[in-house]
Amino acid sequence: MLDKLIYSKEKAEGELVSKAETHTPEIVCPDVVRAGEPFEVKISITKHPNKFEHSIRYVDVFFVEEGRVFNPIKVAKAQFTPEYCEAEVTFKLKIQRSGKIVALAYCNLHGLWEGVKEIRVE
Amino acid sequence: MLDKLIYSKEKAEGELVSKAETHTPEIVCPDVVRAGEPFEVKISITKHPNKFEHSIRYVDVFFVEEGRVFNPIKVAKAQFTPEYCEAEVTFKLKIQRSGKIVALAYCNLHGLWEGVKEIRVE
Amino acid sequence: MLDKLIYSKEKAEGELVSKAETHTPEIVCPDVVRAGEPFEVKISITKHPNKFEHSIRYVDVFFVEEGRVFNPIKVAKAQFTPEYCEAEVTFKLKIQRSGKIVALAYCNLHGLWEGVKEIRVE
Amino acid sequence: MLDKLIYSKEKAEGELVSKAETHTPEIVCPDVVRAGEPFEVKISITKHPNKFEHSIRYVDVFFVEEGRVFNPIKVAKAQFTPEYCEAEVTFKLKIQRSGKIVALAYCNLHGLWEGVKEIRVE
Repeated sequence: MLDKLIYSKEKAEGELVSKAETHTPEIVCPDVVRAGEPFEVKISITKHPNKFEHSIRYVDVFFVEEGRVFNPIKVAKAQFTPEYCEAEVTFKLKIQRSGKIVALAYCNLHGLWEGVKEIRVE
Repeated sequence: MLDKLIYSKEKAEGELVSKAETHTPEIVCPDVVRAGEPFEVKISITKHPNKFEHSIRYVDVFFVEEGRVFNPIKVAKAQFTPEYCEAEVTFKLKIQRSGKIVALAYCNLHGLWEGVKEIRVE
Repeated sequence: MLDKLIYSKEKAEGELVSKAETHTPEIVCPDVVRAGEPFEVKISITKHPNKFEHSIRYVDVFFVEEGRVFNPIKVAKAQFTPEYCEAEVTFKLKIQRSGKIVALAYCNLHGLWEGVKEIRVE
Repeated sequence: MLDKLIYSKEKAEGELVSKAETHTPEIVCPDVVRAGEPFEVKISITKHPNKFEHSIRYVDVFFVEEGRVFNPIKVAKAQFTPEYCEAEVTFKLKIQRSGKIVALAYCNLHGLWEGVKEIRVE
């Protein structure tokens, strides 16, 4: 059921195109990292309004590890209180294998929005 | 990306069939309720092991409301500490329209598993 | 700092007395349980309003175990979306020693409120 | 009950002094900010081990606003999965009045630890 209800920039059509611009989590981190060495990941959804009645309430951060049978791994979560905290968070992650970082943001009016970033371990 | 990574009993094949038995959230609630009147929803994943190193860490509860443009609505969340708390929770929900309750459970070894229950408002 | 900012029925004076009535988590569970045998704990703050602009947003559940050097143990957490979910939750806990269950509820307007229930393992 | 169970560097004595060094959240942010203008707050507990069996599981971030009758305000929360995510997070907060930022970190073995940072709005 939820597989049909996760929005993304790639799948957006029609009215969803403009929604995608303000709702898709942007993920900034290195393209290549070393195994087990911490690196910063900044996730932001700051084009979105941040009002008490309409905001990004939280973002779940997953890692989809290459070669792992059961993905994803939940690696972090951030919750934002509207008006007091912007929808932006920086974590310090550590991975052993290449894969994809997936951020799933929730807007209280417009549901679940996904951003994805590939990352390679060398 | 995550749309391919949400497991469910319906989609399970091969090795996933036995995993589905222990990982799919069971949702118990009335089939029919009245608009705005609270009703209990019990969500359990108690066939699953509950060990420090392997457990259901949390369950997200969504409501997919009929006729709503952007679904789902996040209605509740429960987190379970392994060994101290079983993977079972009862909430008291309140809805105005018919729809589907969706429980998304996370196992630290086997990822995201979905259970769905239809509910009608009369 | 927070030690001065956790309200409870016991410490309430003046204006806080009426606030305590609507904000203190009520904990219902057996007085005596067996070691390692799951038992239900119902936590409710249902005298409180449940409006979008004023509600109990979540409750943290801790266990303070007799004889443990560093307490408390976080055992569970429940989050409630205003209007869709009442501030009531039932968990199934499991303990090995006597102690106290502590529920810490957060109201977006009136802060942190504590309820405590002793429980004995025989 | 919890008011006696929130540890901090200031109250630490005996064995707690060394625990305080590894468990107290360090808060880095400007001393003075402008009303309603977002600023970064980095919270780190990175001297602490980050092992599956022993780690900082999460940090709750509160704001204690000068002159507010009921404090604190919950402004953000971060959860860290051991081994995949370091106990460090940067949020972007926004305040209207002077006050104190309070970070409450939870270690699965050693309980709740508080860090506090004053911040002035000019």
